[in-house]
Amino acid sequence: MMFLARMDVRFPDTLTAEQIADFQVREKAYSGGLQESGKMAGIWRIVGEYANHSLFDVESNDELHEILSGFPMYPYMTIKVTPLSKHPNSIR
Amino acid sequence: MMFLARMDVRFPDTLTAEQIADFQVREKAYSGGLQESGKMAGIWRIVGEYANHSLFDVESNDELHEILSGFPMYPYMTIKVTPLSKHPNSIR
Amino acid sequence: MMFLARMDVRFPDTLTAEQIADFQVREKAYSGGLQESGKMAGIWRIVGEYANHSLFDVESNDELHEILSGFPMYPYMTIKVTPLSKHPNSIR
Amino acid sequence: MMFLARMDVRFPDTLTAEQIADFQVREKAYSGGLQESGKMAGIWRIVGEYANHSLFDVESNDELHEILSGFPMYPYMTIKVTPLSKHPNSIR
Amino acid sequence: MMFLARMDVRFPDTLTAEQIADFQVREKAYSGGLQESGKMAGIWRIVGEYANHSLFDVESNDELHEILSGFPMYPYMTIKVTPLSKHPNSIR
Amino acid sequence: MMFLARMDVRFPDTLTAEQIADFQVREKAYSGGLQESGKMAGIWRIVGEYANHSLFDVESNDELHEILSGFPMYPYMTIKVTPLSKHPNSIR
Amino acid sequence: MMFLARMDVRFPDTLTAEQIADFQVREKAYSGGLQESGKMAGIWRIVGEYANHSLFDVESNDELHEILSGFPMYPYMTIKVTPLSKHPNSIR
Amino acid sequence: MMFLARMDVRFPDTLTAEQIADFQVREKAYSGGLQESGKMAGIWRIVGEYANHSLFDVESNDELHEILSGFPMYPYMTIKVTPLSKHPNSIR
Amino acid sequence: MMFLARMDVRFPDTLTAEQIADFQVREKAYSGGLQESGKMAGIWRIVGEYANHSLFDVESNDELHEILSGFPMYPYMTIKVTPLSKHPNSIR
Amino acid sequence: MMFLARMDVRFPDTLTAEQIADFQVREKAYSGGLQESGKMAGIWRIVGEYANHSLFDVESNDELHEILSGFPMYPYMTIKVTPLSKHPNSIR
Repeated sequence: MMFLARMDVRFPDTLTAEQIADFQVREKAYSGGLQESGKMAGIWRIVGEYANHSLFDVESNDELHEILSGFPMYPYMTIKVTPLSKHPNSIR
Repeated sequence: MMFLARMDVRFPDTLTAEQIADFQVREKAYSGGLQESGKMAGIWRIVGEYANHSLFDVESNDELHEILSGFPMYPYMTIKVTPLSKHPNSIR
Repeated sequence: MMFLARMDVRFPDTLTAEQIADFQVREKAYSGGLQESGKMAGIWRIVGEYANHSLFDVESNDELHEILSGFPMYPYMTIKVTPLSKHPNSIR
Repeated sequence: MMFLARMDVRFPDTLTAEQIADFQVREKAYSGGLQESGKMAGIWRIVGEYANHSLFDVESNDELHEILSGFPMYPYMTIKVTPLSKHPNSIR
Repeated sequence: MMFLARMDVRFPDTLTAEQIADFQVREKAYSGGLQESGKMAGIWRIVGEYANHSLFDVESNDELHEILSGFPMYPYMTIKVTPLSKHPNSIR
Repeated sequence: MMFLARMDVRFPDTLTAEQIADFQVREKAYSGGLQESGKMAGIWRIVGEYANHSLFDVESNDELHEILSGFPMYPYMTIKVTPLSKHPNSIR
Repeated sequence: MMFLARMDVRFPDTLTAEQIADFQVREKAYSGGLQESGKMAGIWRIVGEYANHSLFDVESNDELHEILSGFPMYPYMTIKVTPLSKHPNSIR
Repeated sequence: MMFLARMDVRFPDTLTAEQIADFQVREKAYSGGLQESGKMAGIWRIVGEYANHSLFDVESNDELHEILSGFPMYPYMTIKVTPLSKHPNSIR
Repeated sequence: MMFLARMDVRFPDTLTAEQIADFQVREKAYSGGLQESGKMAGIWRIVGEYANHSLFDVESNDELHEILSGFPMYPYMTIKVTPLSKHPNSIR
Repeated sequence: MMFLARMDVRFPDTLTAEQIADFQVREKAYSGGLQESGKMAGIWRIVGEYANHSLFDVESNDELHEILSGFPMYPYMTIKVTPLSKHPNSIR
């Protein structure tokens, strides 16, 4: 079951460069695991923005929320989720 | 080079059901060809809306505009394009 | 799996009162069936608007889109779907 | 009398993790009591957001405001309330 | 129980001046009755717009929706309802 | 001459509970005086929000601005003013 | 008492060029009279739009609404009115 | 003096394909003349939209409005103009 | 050449009342000079808001930006500029 | 391949005037280099705003993101990118 998510990141001014770098390391590991498991079907940077569009392939809304709220940077993200369904013109 | 497009379709009230059906047949053929060529990397229905999110993998902005404006339903579509770039956390 | 949908109805000026009444009869039957099957867990009128908020309990995004696009008034509706998950404070 | 509420939570950066955890404990208790009394007819997490949609079944606008402003996290919430009425197609 | 409503009127181009005048006569009568009964506590024109702000004093959401959907011009109105409660600083 | 105002209050995180309580006391006194003089014709809490809708009956725009900017909480308010005129359907 | 108004004009597709030209003649006469009387203190075209910003100097909200609703093109206008007051830095 | 304009075109459903083609021919000629004179410093299609971004280099606001309102498709355009000034980092 | 500007002021919480008062004194002097020179053709307070609408009569976009960025409170302002041209119905 | 970017700058209140001046020096150097290389085809100040519109001529979305995220002020910028393609009426 597919979902499109847009995630915008905004760090508070109080975080240090070290703290941000640490978040980025943990984020990369978490994101890599999701991709290897097939739960995250793709992730792209939105050009010019600290934001991404991601595709998720999950079993349920609950699973998706668990995944999203598990991102290390989740407290600093604004996420909008769009539920997708099979398109009649898709040849997959 | 990847782009995300959101396409919303709204037919004028003057179109007949036959005309709409004809548009849908031609749209399916055009969309199928784009997918087979790899130019359209994916297309999904947005749940509950006459709209889709599509991924395009093209060589240039000009090529993308040529593809989008070639959709049979193009005159009845509102399209918003978001340019994407490689995400540092992508494992592809 | 729960979803909240907001549906706004706007008929084109060309529809007659009879056609609208016919749509309303068929809509009521369709909606009643969904409620009896448990797929639609609730429907409420938004005060002062030709619109409703509805709760759906379905197996997948595809099933939800099939249900929504099957509404007789679907061509005249604007629908926005919000995916819901279990709330940690819910006692159900 | 039914109302739909959407509540978005945003904590100020100055709150500690302990303070937030304490708010969450008190919030859960308050929310549980409202559900047991039947005043809160349902609460769901919006997937990917620190927000919920809730249904309230109350006697008056004053009672609803008293309930909402009593949430422990109320100072950190943005709440939008939509008044609902019986839908002609509802079979309840 | 108080509610603020904003009503915007937009007639379709197909209505004749006579039809519009007829609507206005019936609207005035309906509105007058609501004011005499105390259900409508006030109505004001928004300067420069074919729109009004009205205050309603009703028993329930259902009653308010019945009143609003009974306006002769209802099919041509966009209505937004805001539920109000007693303000702690009100001296009434 | 009537105006509708919507006032939203947002205190900075640096204010203490005591300072806020003091503002509320002074606000209540100021608001009470305006109501007794007839300048403020009504004030209602918007359900679920730290905001109000108020009706003002004043001689001029200058008088209204003087009144609004005199609220103790004015520095923390966002105010939107809508000028109203007599509605042809009003029976007052 | 000063007000800023923004007026956007949109003619329905059914109007002929002659009808539009006639509206423009009457509009010019009406607008000229308002300027001569001092009620309209200024009118400017918004560059690139069929719209204007105007300044009105009137005695009351009722007078302003009477003036605005008297424009020949009023049925085809969307008007937004902003009440103005004396600025402390104005040297007039 | 530089201005950025965004122009969106929307033809009414009543125009025939021949009328639209005629508009496009005249538009191309008009646009070409503006570019040759240097008044229009650039024009680009917005990918996926019947819209453009254009740069104008003119002597005054009046001249710009005269140019914009002279476009053959002007009655079917929505135009937004942004005034630009020299940027301190520009090396031109 | 005329421009309408809307300026909204928001001071950071860290400024003291003395600093704000100092800004206001310098702002008044700067604004007075602009009015005396005829560059600022008018300034009005927006009722209920810490904001103004101003009219500027300048030679170029560059001159206008120089004027606006010279306001003492400029770092705390959000400014939106609308270019104006002569209106065909203006009698000036 | 052309792109239009709008960049809005907002510094946090904690930055000193020296830090801001340093950012501006580095920004100017970075921006100058981009213009000399032809990657940035133009940059203009938006009148009255701490913002610019810029034109970029790049090989790919990845190159554009690399350029944009390399701006010294990037952490304080909000950037919106619009992909452009050749306009049929362009004579270049």
